[in-house]
Amino acid sequence: MTTPTLTPDFLDTDTIRGAVERVLDEFLATKSRSPAPPRLPSLAGLLGDFLSGGKRIRPLLCVTGWRAVGGGGDPGPVLRVAAALEMFHAFALLHDDVMDDSPVRRGRPTMHRTLAGLGATHPGPERIERSGVSGAVLLGDLALLWSDEILHTAGLTPVQLAAVLTPLTTMRTEVMFGQFLDLCATGTLTDDVESTLTVNRYKTAGYTVERPLHIGAAVAGAGPEAMDALTRYALPLGEAFQLRDDLIGVFGTPESTGKSPLDDLRAGKNTTLTALALRASDPVQDAQLRELLGDPLLDEKQAAIVREIFEATGARETVERMIEDRRQRALHALDAAPFTPDAVTALRRLARMTTVRTS
Amino acid sequence: MTTPTLTPDFLDTDTIRGAVERVLDEFLATKSRSPAPPRLPSLAGLLGDFLSGGKRIRPLLCVTGWRAVGGGGDPGPVLRVAAALEMFHAFALLHDDVMDDSPVRRGRPTMHRTLAGLGATHPGPERIERSGVSGAVLLGDLALLWSDEILHTAGLTPVQLAAVLTPLTTMRTEVMFGQFLDLCATGTLTDDVESTLTVNRYKTAGYTVERPLHIGAAVAGAGPEAMDALTRYALPLGEAFQLRDDLIGVFGTPESTGKSPLDDLRAGKNTTLTALALRASDPVQDAQLRELLGDPLLDEKQAAIVREIFEATGARETVERMIEDRRQRALHALDAAPFTPDAVTALRRLARMTTVRTS
Repeated sequence: MTTPTLTPDFLDTDTIRGAVERVLDEFLATKSRSPAPPRLPSLAGLLGDFLSGGKRIRPLLCVTGWRAVGGGGDPGPVLRVAAALEMFHAFALLHDDVMDDSPVRRGRPTMHRTLAGLGATHPGPERIERSGVSGAVLLGDLALLWSDEILHTAGLTPVQLAAVLTPLTTMRTEVMFGQFLDLCATGTLTDDVESTLTVNRYKTAGYTVERPLHIGAAVAGAGPEAMDALTRYALPLGEAFQLRDDLIGVFGTPESTGKSPLDDLRAGKNTTLTALALRASDPVQDAQLRELLGDPLLDEKQAAIVREIFEATGARETVERMIEDRRQRALHALDAAPFTPDAVTALRRLARMTTVRTS
Repeated sequence: MTTPTLTPDFLDTDTIRGAVERVLDEFLATKSRSPAPPRLPSLAGLLGDFLSGGKRIRPLLCVTGWRAVGGGGDPGPVLRVAAALEMFHAFALLHDDVMDDSPVRRGRPTMHRTLAGLGATHPGPERIERSGVSGAVLLGDLALLWSDEILHTAGLTPVQLAAVLTPLTTMRTEVMFGQFLDLCATGTLTDDVESTLTVNRYKTAGYTVERPLHIGAAVAGAGPEAMDALTRYALPLGEAFQLRDDLIGVFGTPESTGKSPLDDLRAGKNTTLTALALRASDPVQDAQLRELLGDPLLDEKQAAIVREIFEATGARETVERMIEDRRQRALHALDAAPFTPDAVTALRRLARMTTVRTS
């Protein structure tokens, strides 16, 4: 592959994204060319399509974490590790969409829905749905295995690999715990704000922000102090990221989010926003929320009622305040952090990007 | 862990099984003790239950492959690698059962059915079924991640790890290809015997026999010649194993197989047995097979008709002959192989065990 060099704008968002995407493209192209049994659809092609259009937040943080603790020289290995994280994320999203039965992802039908459509020659609608689910589960499995393969061919030294495996294993366990917690909570609305924040810590703060930074830093051989400094920035930012996600899921527009603004409400997701609204509701609002949230047939008019309750109870405003509070804490953590100046600049930019975004 | 030592009966089936199960038990016990979010069911406990009762064929072959090419000294690392293969197999089975919607595995309800039962407080039968599927998919994901973790803590040197990753990566890709092929073929009965053998080569011969042997041999630093010698034994044996599996799926008893003798017929599995029967059928038999195979409501009386056609067309006998032919080729390959005598004895025993079995 073409190895990018460390230029002054190396930590530029588009530069990292481009470099990571080249790693993914080259990996998938190799897979497309390698011998496969006849009559199989192009699995690399399906995954390539699925991967396109992502925000690449984990790769951005991974490479920035590497640079923050003084990573330098050939960026090839850390870029490949970053690409492995993006491939892992494809796995997580594919299975998540199956679990939530989400219809749309990144403006396109989700994989299990697409594959169910392809299976339309099969007998019976149940079988069609199941074959879509099966295909998406398998493609997710393949993404997970390929993520491993990218990692193992990243050109890490044995010492680097061992260092990376520690936060990587933690990250993987955390994301699984988060998914199980989510699954257990589905179908029962809660006003327990603290428990929604616990799920977030597992599902997002660790997975999306802290561990990618740690993994990048591990490639550069970071010690425990640098890791702790990254955590102080990462955890509040990760929470803010998820809180922003919750707001976007309800108040976002399909043009910017690439998904229906009804999905999260129809799924009856237990978010901090929902918990705050339930806690502050009067009996009438409480009854309305419990009737509407999780209704798979919820329409735009009913969604408007829910949004109004989120506003009237002050839940939306509280979440906005929580985001701002956490963003400030993340930025504040950078003031005392022992990171390289270019990385601090990039981390400030990432804090803005992840909390002020609209998609 | 208690490390077993190399005694003369080290390659005894029960000795290896016991040693591998101790690795799995200790790993899961550690996981049970490590901090997890509150309110989560014991995932290690669920996986431990699921793992019990397996035949441990891949671990047996892995350890025997290690010994065959001269592996000696501390067997701890190869036993842990063997345990990682068994954990990987748990992943494959969990997702396979979801794909096939199998009701029973090892005499117990499958995981997605069990978890759907636990979710009975959730609203609506569809949601209950989906939460069972989601839970089983997640538990499979966790098994895959933990399989990796066992591998990475197996105590391999960097050279050994690199050697193991080559056949391991191939094995993982092959099993995924096999699953996709299976999925694509579901719902369309075929009389193409050769294509059923292709699926078998991906799904079973490589995954169940050849790669476990290679992986064990890789721990012992085997060169390409030894690997080739293992392949000459493994491929015919792996095919025989799958052919036996196909027969057991149709003619086995629930007492010995731990599953209903109707499952495979109801699923309309494309096996070599089915393809042979279709090829040799007269028009009446052909119509009967196409009506009955894949009927989710097929009863015992209808199953008896299918079995009769499998007999009358000579398909069952042909499969028995194919098994014997392949078993002989596998045994013959051992005559010229450069393996240690104790391993040759064990490989002969494994050839018998995998092809003459009733479950």
